Amino acid sequence: MERIEHRACFGGWQDVYRHRSEVLDCDMTVGVYLPPQAAHGPCPVLYWLSGLTCNEQNFITKAGAQRYAAEHGVILVAPDTSPRGQDVANDEAYDLGQGAGFYVNATREPWAKHYRMYDYVADELPALVEAKFPATDVRAISGHSMGGHGALVIALRNPGRYRSVSAFSPIVAPSQVPWGEKAFAAYLGDDREAWKRYDAVELVKGAREKLPLLVDQGDADEFLSGQLKPELLRAVCAAAGHRLELRLQPGYDHSYYFIASFIGDHIAHHARAMRA
Amino acid sequence: MERIEHRACFGGWQDVYRHRSEVLDCDMTVGVYLPPQAAHGPCPVLYWLSGLTCNEQNFITKAGAQRYAAEHGVILVAPDTSPRGQDVANDEAYDLGQGAGFYVNATREPWAKHYRMYDYVADELPALVEAKFPATDVRAISGHSMGGHGALVIALRNPGRYRSVSAFSPIVAPSQVPWGEKAFAAYLGDDREAWKRYDAVELVKGAREKLPLLVDQGDADEFLSGQLKPELLRAVCAAAGHRLELRLQPGYDHSYYFIASFIGDHIAHHARAMRA
Repeated sequence: MERIEHRACFGGWQDVYRHRSEVLDCDMTVGVYLPPQAAHGPCPVLYWLSGLTCNEQNFITKAGAQRYAAEHGVILVAPDTSPRGQDVANDEAYDLGQGAGFYVNATREPWAKHYRMYDYVADELPALVEAKFPATDVRAISGHSMGGHGALVIALRNPGRYRSVSAFSPIVAPSQVPWGEKAFAAYLGDDREAWKRYDAVELVKGAREKLPLLVDQGDADEFLSGQLKPELLRAVCAAAGHRLELRLQPGYDHSYYFIASFIGDHIAHHARAMRA
Repeated sequence: MERIEHRACFGGWQDVYRHRSEVLDCDMTVGVYLPPQAAHGPCPVLYWLSGLTCNEQNFITKAGAQRYAAEHGVILVAPDTSPRGQDVANDEAYDLGQGAGFYVNATREPWAKHYRMYDYVADELPALVEAKFPATDVRAISGHSMGGHGALVIALRNPGRYRSVSAFSPIVAPSQVPWGEKAFAAYLGDDREAWKRYDAVELVKGAREKLPLLVDQGDADEFLSGQLKPELLRAVCAAAGHRLELRLQPGYDHSYYFIASFIGDHIAHHARAMRA
């Protein structure tokens, strides 16, 4: 891993690394915030998955999360949202291809060679982080929009791997909304059975470990009724007896101003779970 | 004033306005954060002046200042750094023309018609803010780099107008460093006597009101020795008996990660002064 940014921040270091991903078969960038406590010993890690069009910069420059990570002694790891590069398949649309990996392992061409963000986030990246940084194997995961979908799916499919999971404005049922239908048809093909393994609402139905879900959602979010549909998650959690704290935040939209306003709550939530 | 952005943030509203500036003879954009307290009555105002290449977005998206403004009940006003538009003189360099107004009233062509950021920040903008928003006439001023220079100069030249002043990584002696020499020669001409009215180190020598100065400076700042030279401010403040709290912050650079790390201290400092 090559360090390409290194900036003092809240007594720790906001770094950016470039590294070769074997899983994605391309170079990737990832933001890593090391809190002051990491200078004295290993710390637990919160993985953050960003949304459509983002790369590793959005969260590290706009969320103001480092303050809370420094308070709680949590490492923040914020990867890019897709494979990247001239050799990597792409699409002109903002919601397909580079910047729109949807945290799946693609099975259809031209995507299958590089688009394996599920394996990258769930396996390859934590292994790298835990080998390279003063990180324990105590993990939590969160994200925004497409990244909220990714966090919920990866946590639900990997019982025991994360102490806690949360999401901001997640796409909870990608199989039922335009963003997800477009991406899943391209990456996974037309068989909707294959989509269910990447759909939080479907996964809650059969979840073995009932890890509580913390979800913040702005009620002025421009994508609320068309793409996000948190009521589908509420209904399935109620039916399955899966604990969900869904907070509808009045007046808030889909932007990083929303994330910044509540990321402190989420980091405190994850820090409590990771200390327990 | 036309509102062009409106986003819930820490219980208040991060807005952006476009308005016609008579002083600058062009349209301007300005970020205005209204804390939750502004819904119940007038609040004091902290003006923030950004640095080279910035517009009103940098501070409002990257500094994380809204959290502290919401805690203390302070309005944040963050203007653009120069006049803008196709009819406004410009230069290809990043450190002259649009994005580089240096908070002076230009007297030389082609700049004199629009480049009057001193009058805009010191007079026109506060008058607009205090007429349009639930703002008192209790003011403080701060800024970064070129904007730290602007904040120090405007506060030093206007006794009684601001309750407090602070700066991050300011250009304290523009007459003595390359950025300032280039900009002042262009905007003000070759007579260096005219430069002194826009040079904090010169202004401290004759300051009537000895408003204490709070300055944070990263000791890993890439511009420290060539452009910023805080030791010049320290020497002149010592000689003039002008109170200065100059904090050299170990490891910090010139970026918004530095500002984010200490903006809470600055807002608390200004809030105390504005309550007094």
